[in-house]
Amino acid sequence: MAADFSAGVPSPALILEAATAYRRAAALRSAIELDLFTALADSPLDAAALAARSGAAARGVRMLCDALATLGFLQKEAARYSLTSEAAIFLNRNSPACMADAFLFLSSPHIENAFRELTSAVRRGGTSFEAANVTAPEHDFWLHFARAMAPMMSYPAESIAQLLGADNGEKWNVLDIAAGHGMFGIALARHNPNASITALDWPGVLALARANAQAAGVAGRFRELPGSAFDVEFGTGYSIILLTNFLHHFDPSTCETLLRKVHHALAPGGRTATLEFVPDDDRTSPPFASLFSLNMLVHTPGGDAYTRPELERMFHNAGFISSEFHPLPPGPQTLVISQK
Amino acid sequence: MAADFSAGVPSPALILEAATAYRRAAALRSAIELDLFTALADSPLDAAALAARSGAAARGVRMLCDALATLGFLQKEAARYSLTSEAAIFLNRNSPACMADAFLFLSSPHIENAFRELTSAVRRGGTSFEAANVTAPEHDFWLHFARAMAPMMSYPAESIAQLLGADNGEKWNVLDIAAGHGMFGIALARHNPNASITALDWPGVLALARANAQAAGVAGRFRELPGSAFDVEFGTGYSIILLTNFLHHFDPSTCETLLRKVHHALAPGGRTATLEFVPDDDRTSPPFASLFSLNMLVHTPGGDAYTRPELERMFHNAGFISSEFHPLPPGPQTLVISQK
Repeated sequence: MAADFSAGVPSPALILEAATAYRRAAALRSAIELDLFTALADSPLDAAALAARSGAAARGVRMLCDALATLGFLQKEAARYSLTSEAAIFLNRNSPACMADAFLFLSSPHIENAFRELTSAVRRGGTSFEAANVTAPEHDFWLHFARAMAPMMSYPAESIAQLLGADNGEKWNVLDIAAGHGMFGIALARHNPNASITALDWPGVLALARANAQAAGVAGRFRELPGSAFDVEFGTGYSIILLTNFLHHFDPSTCETLLRKVHHALAPGGRTATLEFVPDDDRTSPPFASLFSLNMLVHTPGGDAYTRPELERMFHNAGFISSEFHPLPPGPQTLVISQK
Repeated sequence: MAADFSAGVPSPALILEAATAYRRAAALRSAIELDLFTALADSPLDAAALAARSGAAARGVRMLCDALATLGFLQKEAARYSLTSEAAIFLNRNSPACMADAFLFLSSPHIENAFRELTSAVRRGGTSFEAANVTAPEHDFWLHFARAMAPMMSYPAESIAQLLGADNGEKWNVLDIAAGHGMFGIALARHNPNASITALDWPGVLALARANAQAAGVAGRFRELPGSAFDVEFGTGYSIILLTNFLHHFDPSTCETLLRKVHHALAPGGRTATLEFVPDDDRTSPPFASLFSLNMLVHTPGGDAYTRPELERMFHNAGFISSEFHPLPPGPQTLVISQK
């Protein structure tokens, strides 16, 4: 949505759009709560027909659907609404890549409330209240996260399996650090019948990862290692160590300490696969990765979205000989494959 | 900010941006609370210098300013931040067009909480709880609104004075319906020394309008008419009747009833000046005007953002002979001048 009320002169458009950003979130949340996207999956409907299906008022549905069309989530033609390709893939409950629950989690009070304290986090230079600090042991944030985010991770998990060459079927001993829902390790095990996975995380979250491994038919090659990545003994001889969405929670020195431990646990020639939001060196683009550092400001004492040079330095200092960076479209993240 | 993680394939970018829209609002709110824009008004500063001025941590200021640069509110060059032209005009507290308080109001719980109930408003087809219904008599929303929004209305108020030809100095008897902060009538009085203003609104709000009229030096030509626009006797013989940001709160039939009363109160050849959000006929563009109908869904029983044909029909049905539409850049609104 272009914020431009009039080309060429300074305009309050961007400010008004930021001030009313909740409209965009609220419109999508209501459409998910009323499950309008699934109702529109088969054929276009007008507001009256859609209202009848969703038990809502035709007037309310018309106003909501016009807003969804304005925001790019629906198409409108001759008063009938249909799904955009994005909505068909990511918002229809019958789509395997449906991220409706991820949306509800990302826009939930778990995160929004932390952002209400952004000013005090800026004053302190880190998270300003204990409940927001997601690096605390067994923080219940992670159980909600793991439940909501698993389907959304199917795209990057497939990309990681492909980039690591999982289909070659080499014998792999995989450590999945902060496994969460477990979907990254599970994808490797699905693609490589000779891969066995050790999933490390807090016990409550691991129960969910185990259930996901069972559902994927790889439970026989799925081992649990409960505890903190900083305290638990990893063991050694791993071919692959997954570090997905983990480093950004910690300051560079803590990251390096962990990466030395990871380096030690890898077999010779072993690789780490690190999934991160990687902003450009100026930290102001691309937008989603750059803005992620605000999440770390409100949610952690010292975390950040690290640039490519910063990540290269951490891996280099921890003993890795090289790091390759692979953006993972259509998502906003980057995979870093580092070689022991 | 373009939501595009990868051109050409369906992307979750728009959905993720909507899910995390609070980041955008929170970043701007914190910068206003820490008054960073005023601190940067004179010269570019790096994070450490800006942190020293604002009593915040350099790390937090760096992360916040990178986000503000990402969002287009700051420029970043060689680790120093400076104001964009928009920030210099609309976010610097020393600028007369500063809309910092308007931002804080528009992003405040007064409105955001109503949007939390959007789903039930869609189900009902109108506002879902009494506290959100801003059409209730003397709703305290309007006092907050009038306090916060006055400076932001200086641009459109000047445009209205110009489009009506206030500088010609004809003898004008002006009725300002739902005057609020009073800035629209006051602008006419400032430009036209032969204009006298009758400001109609709830008594609590009128006290603020009176103070604004005094500050503008036009109190001697400023009369108050307390009460509801639907109940109070307007009198007759007005040259100009201002209807700014009012019609959208009501259903078309209620609007027509009011417009007949307005028509009756105008002198022959008199004009109404109606300020509205006017979406295109498809109601899906331009974005800001189209999305405004969601505000009316959550905040009123029957209000809406009306299209040009809808407004033309209302004015025609009420007896007006013509209506001219003037978009008012750089803002998102349109002025409708209708002739008796």
